[in-house]
Amino acid sequence: MELDVLNAVLKPKSIAVIGASATPGKIGYTVVDNLVTSQYEGAVYPINPGASEILGFKAYPSILEVPGEVDMAVFTIPAKLVLNAIEECGKKGVKGLVVITSGFGEVGKTDLEREMVEIAHRYGMRILGPNIVGVLSNSMKMNASFAPTLPLPGKGALVSQSGALLIAIDMSTFTRRVGFDKLVSIGNMSDIEFADLIEWFDQDDDTTSISLYIEGLKNGRKFMEVSQKATKPIIALKSGVSAHGAAAAASHTGSLAGAAKVYGAAFEQAGVIQASDLNNLFDRSLALSLQPPMNGENLLIITNGGGVGVLATDAAERYGIPLKFAPEDVQAELKKHMPEFGSAKNPADLTGQASAEWYENSVRNSFAHPWVDGLTVLYCEVAVTDPMDVAVGIKRAIDESGVKGKPLTVSFVGGEKTEAAMQWLVEQGIPAYDDPDSAVNAMAALREYALMREHDATFTKADTSSAKEKAMKIIAAARADGRDALTEIEAKKVFEAYGLPVPKCDLAATEAEAIQMANTIGYPIVMKIVSPEILHKSDAGGVKVNIKNAEECRQAFNTIMENARNYNPAANLHGVVIQEMAPWGTEVILGSINDPTFGPTVMFGLGGIFVEVLKDVTFRVAPISEKRANVMVNEIKSAPILKGVRGEEPKDRAALAKTIANYSNMVFDLIDEVSESDANPVIVYEEGQGVSVVDARMILKK
Amino acid sequence: MELDVLNAVLKPKSIAVIGASATPGKIGYTVVDNLVTSQYEGAVYPINPGASEILGFKAYPSILEVPGEVDMAVFTIPAKLVLNAIEECGKKGVKGLVVITSGFGEVGKTDLEREMVEIAHRYGMRILGPNIVGVLSNSMKMNASFAPTLPLPGKGALVSQSGALLIAIDMSTFTRRVGFDKLVSIGNMSDIEFADLIEWFDQDDDTTSISLYIEGLKNGRKFMEVSQKATKPIIALKSGVSAHGAAAAASHTGSLAGAAKVYGAAFEQAGVIQASDLNNLFDRSLALSLQPPMNGENLLIITNGGGVGVLATDAAERYGIPLKFAPEDVQAELKKHMPEFGSAKNPADLTGQASAEWYENSVRNSFAHPWVDGLTVLYCEVAVTDPMDVAVGIKRAIDESGVKGKPLTVSFVGGEKTEAAMQWLVEQGIPAYDDPDSAVNAMAALREYALMREHDATFTKADTSSAKEKAMKIIAAARADGRDALTEIEAKKVFEAYGLPVPKCDLAATEAEAIQMANTIGYPIVMKIVSPEILHKSDAGGVKVNIKNAEECRQAFNTIMENARNYNPAANLHGVVIQEMAPWGTEVILGSINDPTFGPTVMFGLGGIFVEVLKDVTFRVAPISEKRANVMVNEIKSAPILKGVRGEEPKDRAALAKTIANYSNMVFDLIDEVSESDANPVIVYEEGQGVSVVDARMILKK
Repeated sequence: MELDVLNAVLKPKSIAVIGASATPGKIGYTVVDNLVTSQYEGAVYPINPGASEILGFKAYPSILEVPGEVDMAVFTIPAKLVLNAIEECGKKGVKGLVVITSGFGEVGKTDLEREMVEIAHRYGMRILGPNIVGVLSNSMKMNASFAPTLPLPGKGALVSQSGALLIAIDMSTFTRRVGFDKLVSIGNMSDIEFADLIEWFDQDDDTTSISLYIEGLKNGRKFMEVSQKATKPIIALKSGVSAHGAAAAASHTGSLAGAAKVYGAAFEQAGVIQASDLNNLFDRSLALSLQPPMNGENLLIITNGGGVGVLATDAAERYGIPLKFAPEDVQAELKKHMPEFGSAKNPADLTGQASAEWYENSVRNSFAHPWVDGLTVLYCEVAVTDPMDVAVGIKRAIDESGVKGKPLTVSFVGGEKTEAAMQWLVEQGIPAYDDPDSAVNAMAALREYALMREHDATFTKADTSSAKEKAMKIIAAARADGRDALTEIEAKKVFEAYGLPVPKCDLAATEAEAIQMANTIGYPIVMKIVSPEILHKSDAGGVKVNIKNAEECRQAFNTIMENARNYNPAANLHGVVIQEMAPWGTEVILGSINDPTFGPTVMFGLGGIFVEVLKDVTFRVAPISEKRANVMVNEIKSAPILKGVRGEEPKDRAALAKTIANYSNMVFDLIDEVSESDANPVIVYEEGQGVSVVDARMILKK
Repeated sequence: MELDVLNAVLKPKSIAVIGASATPGKIGYTVVDNLVTSQYEGAVYPINPGASEILGFKAYPSILEVPGEVDMAVFTIPAKLVLNAIEECGKKGVKGLVVITSGFGEVGKTDLEREMVEIAHRYGMRILGPNIVGVLSNSMKMNASFAPTLPLPGKGALVSQSGALLIAIDMSTFTRRVGFDKLVSIGNMSDIEFADLIEWFDQDDDTTSISLYIEGLKNGRKFMEVSQKATKPIIALKSGVSAHGAAAAASHTGSLAGAAKVYGAAFEQAGVIQASDLNNLFDRSLALSLQPPMNGENLLIITNGGGVGVLATDAAERYGIPLKFAPEDVQAELKKHMPEFGSAKNPADLTGQASAEWYENSVRNSFAHPWVDGLTVLYCEVAVTDPMDVAVGIKRAIDESGVKGKPLTVSFVGGEKTEAAMQWLVEQGIPAYDDPDSAVNAMAALREYALMREHDATFTKADTSSAKEKAMKIIAAARADGRDALTEIEAKKVFEAYGLPVPKCDLAATEAEAIQMANTIGYPIVMKIVSPEILHKSDAGGVKVNIKNAEECRQAFNTIMENARNYNPAANLHGVVIQEMAPWGTEVILGSINDPTFGPTVMFGLGGIFVEVLKDVTFRVAPISEKRANVMVNEIKSAPILKGVRGEEPKDRAALAKTIANYSNMVFDLIDEVSESDANPVIVYEEGQGVSVVDARMILKK
């Protein structure tokens, strides 16, 4: 089982340091020294051909000469020596390799990196790195890195793709007073990637939450799958959201995507909570590592200052957990612990006179009340009440309430005594912040976690093998015809195979066929030229709408064919499509991209101005369930238009969601064949009346 | 001059404490004790009828018996004793009153509060408070409050409307290491309000920036006027943005307003920088108190870590100062101080090997380069380079560059040594933050300040007295007619008087008049019923469009009158308006509200869905210049539609801006008469073709 192999990197029983050095300042010295300082309890084997002893450990010229078993080997030797040493590690039976050494993929030496992994895998070894700082674990008392110290102890794990940031975060755990159990530097991810570590942390008893600093994922799908399955909260700070967009701007849909939107969609689908910046990563990690999710929407705020109460109220609205007034019985109980001019609504303002006892009683009663889904306690330092007394009161109240599985966050604003009280609270497992906004944002993270866990837990893609078979035949025929785009009618046949509602249509090669088909479909009809060489059908005079009878159909057929011939005499004319004329409704667009990280990804938005001017679109990595498609339908800014505004009837959002889900299956199935597709426009009718894919486009991969 | 009187509150030469006490724990004791502890150098006179000496000062039974002059009196006596004591202060010639006492307006005793101010003003005294913590000033060595200590010294002033928050902020200056020269608790603002303090701080040599925690302004206009004139940066944290909206939702425009949007508009017009939360208030205050504005858009970032560099790049885009690549010569110079694998683009990544010397040289050269308008330096703590050495290098480089008037912000991420280095930087006048996001946000505040200072500095409202005269006559006539709404044609006459382009129109009482007017205006025309009792003209069958000739006009007149009679037999029919038929173009809406804080305020947005579904509207306090109206036109999300999308010609935004400015003059002039008005729709034509106010509505105050 792969996870066992990762034990060798995260919980090794013994460590060899290949390139260990007796010279202070060298990384090979620092790593051994750090293992000593951190009081690592396993065996340590310095490997150095020129030394017999390093920092009190017997040194060996080669790993092959180490007498005992070696779980993990840390590499601090130059890149050019790494391959040979890995071979030796393999022979020795080492399981995990922590390659601190740089000079691989990050300087273009991708071949060397690949070769390294090949050798390792041949022996069943896994590699962390190269180009990393190392691995730090408080529960293992192991600083197997060149970072100066183990971080302040905490309950979460943090993985960083930037080594410099990892070291800086490590040291700032002490000044920020937000600890971690483990810090892992992931570097080039030649082998072990985020998904592997998430899987391992999820089964590790010493980890309660998983924080990630991500610059870019190698395998977006695997990351999503593992994250979806994880039972512990995952918090990600994704950097580099401002660059990617332009690069991906090849297609129309692509230009609307950009890393922020697609990563954001993938995180949402994977149940990964996002952090907005470094401070926010610390703040949210603290809450998610210590507190349960907020399973409901009722947040109660208790405060001794109206000012911070109002700021917290604003923050609650901003972060999606707007306050509601507490029910009468909650208010009645709160009123017992405040002066007459206090307020028992929400926030409950105990006023500046609030004693530690008032805090304790208010917290105990309200935390136990079933209406309260989450509690945020605010305190402004005042002379009459010692912050530590308030902290102790809060903790005791929570414990005595006997309530489990409900979250609490705290913000104290004040000086040194306040800081000390907050530090104590954190040590007791209660996240505390110096700003009411941060305490509310942390609660919002706990709410987001609960909401994301509710979504789609059981979704599995429908069996679409027969649709795929039909689609592949149509595609094969087009390819056989030497084309890399389907005609409209071919594209619609593919769409139809996947259950997308297209208007009745057929291809007429002759005037007689056209009239026969029109009679079968029923008037009025739309007629459009079909030619691989004519993309802009209207410009070519190749479209006629509202054809009401056989005579008009005959005339239109001939006019369209003639116009097309004049427009492009070289064009290969397949004929004219005879199509049922769909009545008009609300226009929406479906599109897709093949995201470099996450692969097939679908886009949805309202048509026209909404897409082109307001960029009011939303993405999801395909395939998606109808339930998730329904979230897309409701989350765009222009969603009220589909719900029905200005006296209009609501539109058929259920049919639309089903169409998006089916479209996502198609995009997913055909990703190896199709580079780009869209349904533009799709017409949405009133509730119960369905949707109609009026135009379809599909470009094949070359 | 009023500012001199404020000296008595902010720079008093002598202080009497009315209600001074010898009993520790009483506020009257704490205030005297705080004056001692803060080493206040002026005379201190405790006033207490029952004591002869308090904390070493001779006590007096009444202020009238104090031998010397008294500048300021601090009140710590119960509310019921205050009036009499103020009378005595007046007789004694005291100038400034700091009324800590609570029990006034905040508990409904507004009469008592008003009486207090009346007495004070009779003697030419000004009142700070009541219901406050007091005044604290480092430069005066004066803690005239019951807050426990003077704040950490800094260069800015902070005014707080929440007393509890002021005390908490006071103490947290030490833990956050962001100092202030003065803290002022403003409480109920019975007399001295934010505007007074801004005016005073603006001329005070010990103040470089003005930070405000605002719950609500009493006089929004005065605040705006004073802020506009101020020469020092003002930073405001406005709380309570989530409640106000619902309350103001009486009118259509009102429901779109809400405190956040109108306050935001007023702050922008007044050149006041906004903070998003308490931490952000500290962060931005620090930068604005220490650094000059960023007069240009080129931000350069120097870093030793790619990770924080990317995070800062994301933040720069998020906060409106997106990075551009540095010019070749800047890059060439930077390249001299980094290894080969470093990057000289922007961010300039000196890599983890960066020494203090590399930092120093990079900062010196780039700070002096004219392309660089602002510099943000990032540092991740690494073993090879001591953070203090980096800090000293940065400071020396800035000093030696000889460049003034260009801003610098810094973010160091790391542990204790890093914290110490940042503290040292702040002491040297360089704002430093523990998160790259905060350093970039602080720079964005300096950029916002520069941009706001560029706007509209010389705007004065045009003379609209003759337009107002015409408008008042029309309004008077309607009132004489017993009406509180103008008819469409009356409203248009008022709009026209203010230079708003309305279609040619006239009111026909008879068939003959209708035809004559139509012939004069020219066909095609629109005809609409005019009746104070018929608001929904279309529903009444009272609208006919595209009337092409005299015969159609005759028929339409009679049909409209008949329909109106049938619709509402009791309606008073003024006749039918004959109106030039404006060709169609892009629909926009102008509206107005009478904001409780800022008074006449105009709204602008695109018509239909954009206003009703997307709430894509923007506000400004009236009157505004064409220049500022142009900002409104360009800042809505749907602005691209006016710029011309999908091959459409650009719309006449200049004419639109002029129309908005004229509308704002009208709204401002008529605020005492008109409760609500709108121009909906206004049609905007292609550039050079102007706009047309197709429908106008005006409701009078009762």
